Amino acid sequence: MQTTTECIYPNDMKKPSPITTPRGFFFSVTEAAIKKPGRKDLALIFSEAESAIAGTFTTNAVKAAPVRICMQKIRSGKGQAIVVNSGNANACTGKQGMKDAQEIMVKIAKQLGISRPLTYICSTGVIGTPMPMQRIIPAIGPLAGDLGNASFNDIAKAIMTTDTFPKIASREVNIQGKQGIIAGVCKGAGMIAPNMATMLCFIITDIAVEKKTLHAALKGSVRKSFNRITIDGDMSTNDTALIMANGVLGNRPITKTSAGFPTFQKALDELTYELSKLIVKDGEGATKLVEIVVKNARSEEDAEKAALAIANSSLVKTAIYGNDANWGRIMAAAGYSKARFTPESTDIFFNKVQVVKKGVMNNKDREATEEMKGKELKITVDLHTGKALAKVLTCDLTEDYIRINAEYRT
Amino acid sequence: MQTTTECIYPNDMKKPSPITTPRGFFFSVTEAAIKKPGRKDLALIFSEAESAIAGTFTTNAVKAAPVRICMQKIRSGKGQAIVVNSGNANACTGKQGMKDAQEIMVKIAKQLGISRPLTYICSTGVIGTPMPMQRIIPAIGPLAGDLGNASFNDIAKAIMTTDTFPKIASREVNIQGKQGIIAGVCKGAGMIAPNMATMLCFIITDIAVEKKTLHAALKGSVRKSFNRITIDGDMSTNDTALIMANGVLGNRPITKTSAGFPTFQKALDELTYELSKLIVKDGEGATKLVEIVVKNARSEEDAEKAALAIANSSLVKTAIYGNDANWGRIMAAAGYSKARFTPESTDIFFNKVQVVKKGVMNNKDREATEEMKGKELKITVDLHTGKALAKVLTCDLTEDYIRINAEYRT
Repeated sequence: MQTTTECIYPNDMKKPSPITTPRGFFFSVTEAAIKKPGRKDLALIFSEAESAIAGTFTTNAVKAAPVRICMQKIRSGKGQAIVVNSGNANACTGKQGMKDAQEIMVKIAKQLGISRPLTYICSTGVIGTPMPMQRIIPAIGPLAGDLGNASFNDIAKAIMTTDTFPKIASREVNIQGKQGIIAGVCKGAGMIAPNMATMLCFIITDIAVEKKTLHAALKGSVRKSFNRITIDGDMSTNDTALIMANGVLGNRPITKTSAGFPTFQKALDELTYELSKLIVKDGEGATKLVEIVVKNARSEEDAEKAALAIANSSLVKTAIYGNDANWGRIMAAAGYSKARFTPESTDIFFNKVQVVKKGVMNNKDREATEEMKGKELKITVDLHTGKALAKVLTCDLTEDYIRINAEYRT
Repeated sequence: MQTTTECIYPNDMKKPSPITTPRGFFFSVTEAAIKKPGRKDLALIFSEAESAIAGTFTTNAVKAAPVRICMQKIRSGKGQAIVVNSGNANACTGKQGMKDAQEIMVKIAKQLGISRPLTYICSTGVIGTPMPMQRIIPAIGPLAGDLGNASFNDIAKAIMTTDTFPKIASREVNIQGKQGIIAGVCKGAGMIAPNMATMLCFIITDIAVEKKTLHAALKGSVRKSFNRITIDGDMSTNDTALIMANGVLGNRPITKTSAGFPTFQKALDELTYELSKLIVKDGEGATKLVEIVVKNARSEEDAEKAALAIANSSLVKTAIYGNDANWGRIMAAAGYSKARFTPESTDIFFNKVQVVKKGVMNNKDREATEEMKGKELKITVDLHTGKALAKVLTCDLTEDYIRINAEYRT
């Protein structure tokens, strides 16, 4: 079965082609009124065939119950179903949280008639509140029974918390003469910071991929996408990216030495980059998408340190919001990033306008201000000390970020 | 000469006793219209006698011209005058910035009739704009000529940028039967983050202190005061704390082995803590002063890491602004701080209300919300893994922070 869904994008974004979902995956969503009633907050992704599965998880020492469970299970490399809820993160919920997550999985596995180890669970939402099991458990039957009646876009909608639009993307890939599909959904909005997967991301493909290769491919893609975005510098307790490859396409499983591997990796890289861009675009209160490029650094690590420090700086982010080409704050952030560079050889560009030449002003602040008035901005910092490059996506910091987060639980 | 000045404090703060300034120091302020006209933005601190001087400086790799000059000069341990301007940071201004700073010092030294090595310079304000020398140079004569006609509080006012009130404090200390005085002014408001001195802080005392001892005392005090405050996590290019001890009191110079040393250190600790508290209280847009105490950590470093991560978290700071006892964000921040701890043994208190007991909720969120409605809040995180403690001062994050920083240069 191949479904086509249309994604709801904000008005100012180019409308992408309809999302094509991989064969052999079925979806279901239902309302369990987890945080409050009125929306589908429980979702199920199911593959008709046992699949290879791989994941990356938050590096936060405080890990939600479902994260701890998934990290344990994923060692098998096998999966068939993912149940996911929004509204409650099931984090800092102690032993009861672990029991609750297990109980949901057991019930789902039973309803689907699959073995428990093939069932995965993810949660997102408020930290520290026990799961409302009295409302979740009765919803599991209808959720499993309704499988096939929802689209992948419905999954993207069900996992939203403070997101303002669902995040979905797909790529078609030619593997051994056959047209395979990779599709992904994710959620973001807040508590987005590097060194993690992302809040939640589910990628599915009908291409057969050997499990270790699948893990390596995901890790490679996440490193340059979800791990290089930042909205507020806060790392979540629940970040999880899962990829499930069910092989329904019928190709010989891709391994690292397969001719098809680079093609698959490239498509996965593009897909995760597109999804991470959507997360930043929908950053809480954000009005602008900003790409920070640090180039000609001594090492990729130096470039990444500088780019992340700039991308995380509240002062840089508020200046961008105010259309103020305040490059001094960019220099200051690079300066405390611990990246190795000489301020006196640094150039800075706002799009193509050079505001800093060899560490000092280039009298182009007015032109740079004009560049800032668009919805997207690229800031390039050329360190002139080497050849390495890193890109980080970020957004501006606005009054709305404050409002959203001052009122989140109320 | 001993002057008494009254400090202008915000209405909701307890009015402190009038500030007593140390003997033998003279002050002057004038308007040089550095950023814009209408305020005194050039200030001079002068000691009638050559003094011991010590300083701590930003660890940012991008250092303003005056910082680089002071770091070089201070090796002598001797000083007599400090000229300081607000409105322009003289940072990222290249060779011209160094020349400008030198020229100002040379002119000041000449006017005062003291040797150049005894003259220090500090700047604060916008980064990257050349110093308006055509307005500063003509102001130097009047500045030096007017010495003695301003108070230490006038200095505190002249160094303000986005500060809403001047920051000044003093302590009387009995040294060898004589009443010595230590007084300090500082400025803060934005670009405040640990691992530095502070934005600018000038401490003067009439107590004689041997120069190496003075440096050690300042370093010790700064570590537990200015280096443990955070407003926006952005480290400045200009942070400088200077202390000048002119010995006019006539005591035998204090050394580390003197009976008076602990007394002096304690007074300096208190003074710098009071000044750093004033900085956080006046954090850009802040409505609340928050003390984060992490206790029973495995090491002071662990306690400090956890406290700083919590104090820097935008999500924690917005929740505090919204009077939301969202302790999950505190757990998450501690979790990514790299401090060693077990979430399951962690307790969290809002003032005396325990919101988290052994890592899970204690059903006291409503009581905690009541505690949050005051102007000051103490959040205690008990890790139960050791005996070390660290305190960090921070403030809430509000819409006003965004407004102030989106419009700073306009």
